[in-house]
Amino acid sequence: MSIGRLAILGVGLIGGSLALALKKQGAVEQVVGWSRREATLRKALELGVIDRAEPDPGDAIRGAEIAVLGVPVGAMESLFRQLAPHLGKETVITDVGSTKGSVVEAARCAFGELPPTFVPGHPIAGIERSGVEAAFAELYQGRRVILTPLPESDPDAVSRVRAMWEQCGAEVVEMEVVHHDEVLAATSHLPHMLAYSLVDTLARMDESEEIFQYAAGGFRDFTRIASSDPRMWHDICLANRDALSAMLERFRADLAQLSDAIRKGDSDFLMQTFLRAKRARDRFCG
Amino acid sequence: MSIGRLAILGVGLIGGSLALALKKQGAVEQVVGWSRREATLRKALELGVIDRAEPDPGDAIRGAEIAVLGVPVGAMESLFRQLAPHLGKETVITDVGSTKGSVVEAARCAFGELPPTFVPGHPIAGIERSGVEAAFAELYQGRRVILTPLPESDPDAVSRVRAMWEQCGAEVVEMEVVHHDEVLAATSHLPHMLAYSLVDTLARMDESEEIFQYAAGGFRDFTRIASSDPRMWHDICLANRDALSAMLERFRADLAQLSDAIRKGDSDFLMQTFLRAKRARDRFCG
Repeated sequence: MSIGRLAILGVGLIGGSLALALKKQGAVEQVVGWSRREATLRKALELGVIDRAEPDPGDAIRGAEIAVLGVPVGAMESLFRQLAPHLGKETVITDVGSTKGSVVEAARCAFGELPPTFVPGHPIAGIERSGVEAAFAELYQGRRVILTPLPESDPDAVSRVRAMWEQCGAEVVEMEVVHHDEVLAATSHLPHMLAYSLVDTLARMDESEEIFQYAAGGFRDFTRIASSDPRMWHDICLANRDALSAMLERFRADLAQLSDAIRKGDSDFLMQTFLRAKRARDRFCG
Repeated sequence: MSIGRLAILGVGLIGGSLALALKKQGAVEQVVGWSRREATLRKALELGVIDRAEPDPGDAIRGAEIAVLGVPVGAMESLFRQLAPHLGKETVITDVGSTKGSVVEAARCAFGELPPTFVPGHPIAGIERSGVEAAFAELYQGRRVILTPLPESDPDAVSRVRAMWEQCGAEVVEMEVVHHDEVLAATSHLPHMLAYSLVDTLARMDESEEIFQYAAGGFRDFTRIASSDPRMWHDICLANRDALSAMLERFRADLAQLSDAIRKGDSDFLMQTFLRAKRARDRFCG
């Protein structure tokens, strides 16, 4: 399958890497880009990520077979509204937002009813860098892409989005919207909150200058995700507030137990917890 | 400076890598090893990490210029007691424990009064692997080693320990015992608790099998330290209980604030926190 025209709305790391991957595979003829910032569009043209820049999102999707929305999840509804008057039946709409419930809700508000051409998606392939300068064709090799098709989604539209991601080397899986948001709250949103919160706690200590000097390799890896884009994570927190709050509550209860065990010197509890965690991590990520 | 005989008591990643580094530099003539487990000693001999194995720690330090204690911090006092009757003036004693207050206390209990030949130390060079099989000569290249000399410590003994680590390519700094334990609670012990606790929280969820499948690169890096040796971390928690409890309390208060902000949808709080954390991390670890 080759895509005639692909529209990327919001040309950052994720949308840019998708364009580069499809181009590398010869799986797209033309990539049209739109971005809120003109400088981003110029950069995307310079880097060869897009072939044509459009200052208006409605113009950008005209004649596109697939339009990929890569803006922060907090900006989705406004973008959907701008697209609504221009949406034709020939254009499949998908997105790459890290939360799916909020994006579906945004589409429902903007479109009135959900178009059959809309297939929500989420490539699990973030890195802490962001922006079109960070885009590269291999980002999706061996990564998972989750699609959360809706009852309204046309099976043909789902197939086309699936095929697009598979051409980038990704493994595509399907999931319910609510389930996606719970799984991602656990594996991605909660860890980001812990990393941001830890770095912020240390940064606000009087001796923070000195403290960071003694942060070794483990700390670097552990806090890498705290270098992620603050705006994107701000949006994700608000968009996935319920599932993330539930995970935070669960984690905080467990951490309170661990803290108690440390204070009381509960040797058995500590050994059991660390052993169980090590076993799980070695098994799943080893 | 070359060390005539070096004794490594507890031949794991840390002690083993020290022996290999000094051998590579031609900075030691003979390495004598002792370990609680006979299999470890055999392995260390096989790998050329030590030149002679001694089944008794007292015999191992006889005639050694420097004895390095590399056992878990919870095993230090018992080892000090075994060494006490054999301790000569010619042998400098140092350790590589991750907590310093507890090791100094253990030495005080075992020796009655602190010998001038005792120089507590801590190389900031852990990796999540452990055991003598993981040892390698380059572990300390460019890493920091913290020494916490005591009022009782002979300056000449301090110099010899410093020179030993510098020959391995490490940068040696000196610090007060209490301060060391606070800094490490912040940069190392707290992050390990968060990683263990997060992985354990997810592992105990009903959908844990599925959840871990969607853990991407960020999660892998974030939780790498949860693959560390459970026994070692059990000992560290108990040994540095006060400083670690204080840090945990501080972190939990901050995390509670962040959780509130998410639940309430406090946009400004979220943006400020994430921006501050990203700035601090990029500045110190970038």
